[in-house]
Amino acid sequence: MPDRADRLDPQPPAAPSGGTVPDVLATARQRPLLLFGLTPPRRSATPEQVAEIARVTLARLAPLDVDALLLYDIDDESDRNPDERPFPYLPTMDPAVFHATHLSDWHRPTIIYRCVGKYPEPELRDWLEATDPDRVAAVLVGASSSTKEVRTPLPRAHALRREVRPDLAVGGVAIPERHTRGRDEHLRMLAKQEQGCAFFVSQVIYDVDATKSLVSDYRYACRERGVAPQPIVFTLSVCGSLKTLSFLKWLGVAVPWWLENALRHAEDPLAESYEQCLANARELAGFCRRLGVPFGFHVESVSIRKVEIDAAVALAARMRELLTD
Amino acid sequence: MPDRADRLDPQPPAAPSGGTVPDVLATARQRPLLLFGLTPPRRSATPEQVAEIARVTLARLAPLDVDALLLYDIDDESDRNPDERPFPYLPTMDPAVFHATHLSDWHRPTIIYRCVGKYPEPELRDWLEATDPDRVAAVLVGASSSTKEVRTPLPRAHALRREVRPDLAVGGVAIPERHTRGRDEHLRMLAKQEQGCAFFVSQVIYDVDATKSLVSDYRYACRERGVAPQPIVFTLSVCGSLKTLSFLKWLGVAVPWWLENALRHAEDPLAESYEQCLANARELAGFCRRLGVPFGFHVESVSIRKVEIDAAVALAARMRELLTD
Repeated sequence: MPDRADRLDPQPPAAPSGGTVPDVLATARQRPLLLFGLTPPRRSATPEQVAEIARVTLARLAPLDVDALLLYDIDDESDRNPDERPFPYLPTMDPAVFHATHLSDWHRPTIIYRCVGKYPEPELRDWLEATDPDRVAAVLVGASSSTKEVRTPLPRAHALRREVRPDLAVGGVAIPERHTRGRDEHLRMLAKQEQGCAFFVSQVIYDVDATKSLVSDYRYACRERGVAPQPIVFTLSVCGSLKTLSFLKWLGVAVPWWLENALRHAEDPLAESYEQCLANARELAGFCRRLGVPFGFHVESVSIRKVEIDAAVALAARMRELLTD
Repeated sequence: MPDRADRLDPQPPAAPSGGTVPDVLATARQRPLLLFGLTPPRRSATPEQVAEIARVTLARLAPLDVDALLLYDIDDESDRNPDERPFPYLPTMDPAVFHATHLSDWHRPTIIYRCVGKYPEPELRDWLEATDPDRVAAVLVGASSSTKEVRTPLPRAHALRREVRPDLAVGGVAIPERHTRGRDEHLRMLAKQEQGCAFFVSQVIYDVDATKSLVSDYRYACRERGVAPQPIVFTLSVCGSLKTLSFLKWLGVAVPWWLENALRHAEDPLAESYEQCLANARELAGFCRRLGVPFGFHVESVSIRKVEIDAAVALAARMRELLTD
């Protein structure tokens, strides 16, 4: 629901009713979005295992009052980084299939990532045509490196969406680290916006300063062009171990040295990173409010360790309180 | 005074009594220092003008309850940066001479900068011998570039101080921007500490994130070597115009892009930078407290425009409240 009336909803918490994607995106200009991110089950899981994962996941998410689920489309990004991947790459289910077959009890919107380069155009077209734009939004993601084989380039995927499914809301990714390198990520965001992106989801944020610079450059560029800034959803992910830290870095997440020191020397890095995620969220929320940029948060765990997933669920609950204050 | 009893001191505010340098440095481990920085009058000023400047300055500083004055030794740093200096370089009085001849009414410690490369060794030696270690501490500063003619190298100046004036407290400069480039400024601080530095004063801080990384790396390196971290005094300087902003950048101060945008688009950049200095001070104070690193603040104006000096005085007064809370 776009307003807070659902808090008084007498329905059982396992099946929260929720607005449509257009409803949620319309309210995103008035109040911050809260998303929770999931990686679909491994492709090797049996149908029974997938059903059980879906059941447990929805039960955990029910009390969280998140505005939408976010389902990742995991790609083997080893081409992007020659260093050894700290966690092994395991092929996962297609998020669209997982959503269609196992998440019918989720009554709020779902944002489905599409690494468009993985799919031949006819497959993307079929998916676009079959998708319910009231229940689903898409985040179209380009290739993770320029050397990767690309079946459908990102601009073509956007054009296809405009042709066959103009009513399907699409978002784009925003990467502060790319801004740090070239101070041009805000221009990439504006180009995606011209192609139809109605919102952005960031990479995992540990470098708040770089993120503020991206938001600021984007905001002033929007003003210069006379376009309204679209909501930017910042991804928060806890970090419970040095292995998770190295995975975050492998993924390209910039971790300020002081924060890396704090995590390395913390008795409880999970608690330290949890507090830091909250502090980062407060800082970004205040910054976006001052600049008049609509924003939201997306909580996920990059690791599948139970303790880190538990902390992500707790963080999402805390974020809901923080955003409702 | 090391404690707050002087707030009730019935003496007229124009002549606050203050502790000695050793007193002030001893308390710096328990509570944050507050310094106010001045550039000595131009060398072209008449003795009457210098006397008037000293009188007005001391009257303005009297109510501020700062722990020490800081007097800059201005050097022509045009060798350090080939770009045109936004404000012209004007030779200023020797800060030691200004202090000796015109600041006898200042009853608290004074920290005198010495760009040691400017002085032949006998001149430095004479100054060290003539200096009252109860009233004065020195900050010894090396050359601003490797191409500069150096009369006394920094390590030699430190050795000279240990030889002829071991009781004179000395500090060193700490530059977060250098840390950003090489992640080795904490090692330079430790080397200066071995040469006798009892405190550090930073360059003007606009990049809090880089400063936190320097403090963190310094703190963990101190712990590894089993030495106590020395107080780090962070320099805050307001910025009232785009010209001052370009001067700060000319001086080598890193200004995050978001903050530069904020200053460029602000209706009142002076007010914006004032608030930002306060926010930066709060952030650094909290960070240093959590890490157990003694700290302090030094307020100055890099510009000689009256409105910016007024804002610096107001900021120092506000900082005293903030540090006393």
